[in-house]
Amino acid sequence: MSPTSSATARRSYGTTPRINGQRMMDTIHTTCEAWGQAHRYGDHHTETGMARLALDDNDGCVRRWLAEEVVALGCTVAVDQVGNMFAVRPGKVNTDASGAKVAPTYIGSHLDTQATGGRYDGILGVLAGLEVLRTIHEQKIETQGPIGLVNWTNEEGARFPLITMASGVWAGVTPLETAWNTKESPTAAAIYGNSDCPATVKSELKRIGFLGDTPATYTATPMAAHFELHIEQGPILESEQRKIGVVEGAQGYAWYEVTVRGKDAHAGTTPLHTRKDALLAAARMIVAANGVAHEESASTAEANGVVTTGVISALPGTPNTIPHTAQFTLDIRHPRPLRRAAMVDACRSEFAAIADKTGVAVEWKCLSDNETAIFHPDCIAAVQAAAEEEVGTVTTRDGATQTGWRRIWSGAGHDSCNVSKHYPAGMIFTVTRDGLSHTPVEYCSPEDCIVGAQVLLGAVLRFDAKREL
Amino acid sequence: MSPTSSATARRSYGTTPRINGQRMMDTIHTTCEAWGQAHRYGDHHTETGMARLALDDNDGCVRRWLAEEVVALGCTVAVDQVGNMFAVRPGKVNTDASGAKVAPTYIGSHLDTQATGGRYDGILGVLAGLEVLRTIHEQKIETQGPIGLVNWTNEEGARFPLITMASGVWAGVTPLETAWNTKESPTAAAIYGNSDCPATVKSELKRIGFLGDTPATYTATPMAAHFELHIEQGPILESEQRKIGVVEGAQGYAWYEVTVRGKDAHAGTTPLHTRKDALLAAARMIVAANGVAHEESASTAEANGVVTTGVISALPGTPNTIPHTAQFTLDIRHPRPLRRAAMVDACRSEFAAIADKTGVAVEWKCLSDNETAIFHPDCIAAVQAAAEEEVGTVTTRDGATQTGWRRIWSGAGHDSCNVSKHYPAGMIFTVTRDGLSHTPVEYCSPEDCIVGAQVLLGAVLRFDAKREL
Repeated sequence: MSPTSSATARRSYGTTPRINGQRMMDTIHTTCEAWGQAHRYGDHHTETGMARLALDDNDGCVRRWLAEEVVALGCTVAVDQVGNMFAVRPGKVNTDASGAKVAPTYIGSHLDTQATGGRYDGILGVLAGLEVLRTIHEQKIETQGPIGLVNWTNEEGARFPLITMASGVWAGVTPLETAWNTKESPTAAAIYGNSDCPATVKSELKRIGFLGDTPATYTATPMAAHFELHIEQGPILESEQRKIGVVEGAQGYAWYEVTVRGKDAHAGTTPLHTRKDALLAAARMIVAANGVAHEESASTAEANGVVTTGVISALPGTPNTIPHTAQFTLDIRHPRPLRRAAMVDACRSEFAAIADKTGVAVEWKCLSDNETAIFHPDCIAAVQAAAEEEVGTVTTRDGATQTGWRRIWSGAGHDSCNVSKHYPAGMIFTVTRDGLSHTPVEYCSPEDCIVGAQVLLGAVLRFDAKREL
Repeated sequence: MSPTSSATARRSYGTTPRINGQRMMDTIHTTCEAWGQAHRYGDHHTETGMARLALDDNDGCVRRWLAEEVVALGCTVAVDQVGNMFAVRPGKVNTDASGAKVAPTYIGSHLDTQATGGRYDGILGVLAGLEVLRTIHEQKIETQGPIGLVNWTNEEGARFPLITMASGVWAGVTPLETAWNTKESPTAAAIYGNSDCPATVKSELKRIGFLGDTPATYTATPMAAHFELHIEQGPILESEQRKIGVVEGAQGYAWYEVTVRGKDAHAGTTPLHTRKDALLAAARMIVAANGVAHEESASTAEANGVVTTGVISALPGTPNTIPHTAQFTLDIRHPRPLRRAAMVDACRSEFAAIADKTGVAVEWKCLSDNETAIFHPDCIAAVQAAAEEEVGTVTTRDGATQTGWRRIWSGAGHDSCNVSKHYPAGMIFTVTRDGLSHTPVEYCSPEDCIVGAQVLLGAVLRFDAKREL
């Protein structure tokens, strides 16, 4: 069953059929404008961001629309217990000798967004997948095996705070009950008027009609492979004037909550040398953690290693009291697990020194630890071949020629990381303006979206062509 | 009418009568334990802090109790439009030649506390004042003019965020409507179950029955002088092994809200050199502001000058997004106005350099600017003479003798600062264990409380004795 174990059944591969790029872009914008557009930033009708939070009414509408679209293309649609939607279009061979179903080659991503999100993160991946299915259907392309499309539930974790939630359940990383019982955040509850009684994932799945009965497991819904087209969410492709990132994997990351405990005292009457200022110590730690990242990043040519503090608070939280407690998050990432561990150690040691010098105590709590995902060589090869076909050579602004693609690591986690624990997975990155995502102005040009979708089709057809069925 | 313009009517002054120290300490502890005790930190019944927030049920109860106590001592009680309570006990002369009331010599402080406050800040001042009235009454001391006791409303600004609120209204610094319309903070609203509809100062004054009809102005309630006994809230007296601080004034302070604007971006995909991290820049600014304070403090023998950040937040506030905005407070203090201005300038210049280097923008907003208060020479003289009488000479732990009092500056603002804008004011400081206040473990020993109250009585009687009525 391994797609590379023999070449006897392989179909020869010519050139990739052309998708309908205009249709795909229209689909992206009309569905964004119908369901969840928010945060206008310009005059053009496409110049808004998105607030299509997982399992809200807009998410329900776009899901029902997607199901209708893929059924019209000859797909069956299954919904699992956490709302993941699996559309499957039959190929030439759909059952094996024993009569068992052949696992489809899937395309997947997510249709939910951040509360202040854009039109591309996740949405591009699913709707490029739809365009691939439309192209296959319209041009009567006969694939070896079935081709599928997944819409993963609650990838963002913006409303229900569990990132890549439903692919995690499917992959056996997160228990089903944990996902079902996850409550919407207080901010989200306020948005939906649920402050008194925050909704849960299960209550919202039921409410919008997407509490399916397919078991949410990778064994119940097996995959030959999973390809995901996604905006890079970083500045590398743009700055190097390349079009496509052939993704090798996603760097691991850990989230910590650091608590600094000092002593509250009056801001006006307490001399500097007698203070145990928890927030001042925390500020020194945040600066030191950034120093650790810079040192790591400077140590290799790839400049890997980042540390970020996104959340901070101080108690008791009045202007004239020296805080007794400060709390902040650390998001620490590196593609190489040992280097990530070394960065955590360096932060621990720097923080301990600051605590020692300033008379405060420091505690670490790990909120989340996600190992590095390494994508499958067959998927990477299929993506790279498709990228070479589409953007093998490009001309830069100063007239030089170079390859239009590069190997790249994902800085962010994706549903594909969960898939890669069990089945071959691969990703394709497109250019992201200014490297910005998770913001309304997140942008990938129509040309870049279309090139990405074309590479997606090329990768899927190449992978399918090599299957022995 | 000036208390120093002539000596003809002055009463000779002998030795100060003795207060009942045990009764005062019992009163402090029984009233704390009945109304607002919180945050137990030890086994003894006195080892708790306080959470008697302005105008809550506990504040209402202690106010009604105080009114009953002072009426039993022959006082009248007036309540003004912001709930300030003015108790007045007649002296020998209560009206002048024209029949107008003679202004009393007041003792004043506040009965409200921080949410995590102690049993001494404010409470000692009012209940020492009560003990002074009890002593005068019990020992049938005939004062020249009337002696008064003030309980100022919402000195702490802990529930309703306006510090020394009601003395500010009385002094004409804060408009009545501003105080009335001040809403309780979100934290306080949550404590009292008012999150949906936060209470205002006016609604709470009405609810607890302390919306009085005396105009809240210094002209409607004039004062011959105002004496306030207060814990030092700093470590100076303790470290020098002295008993009493003769307060010369209170250092000025300004509160700023600093907003840092960067760019939100993904924590995993955004290389360090392309980030505009608002929170990282804010952390650098907090560290730099502390550096400014250290430099100022090191420049003179008095080691004056402090900067504190008590409040901080970052948006959008998720662990994996680089914050686009960070906001923090700066509390900047110095007894000398020009040096305070120089510290503000130094911070502005350091912050601008950090913003410039890190690609963020920085905005300053002044929340509050309080000039240095200078107390009246007659009040200072009365306090100093009383201190000399009580603790003229003390023996240190290593057997040396020294004066038991020293001149001192207040690091904190007090209601007395507002009084000093219109009438003679003076303050007496007592030893504060470890310099800590605004915390449950705030502590002043019974011996030190009693010495303080004795100096208070001595100062008031001395001031009164010099009045020409």
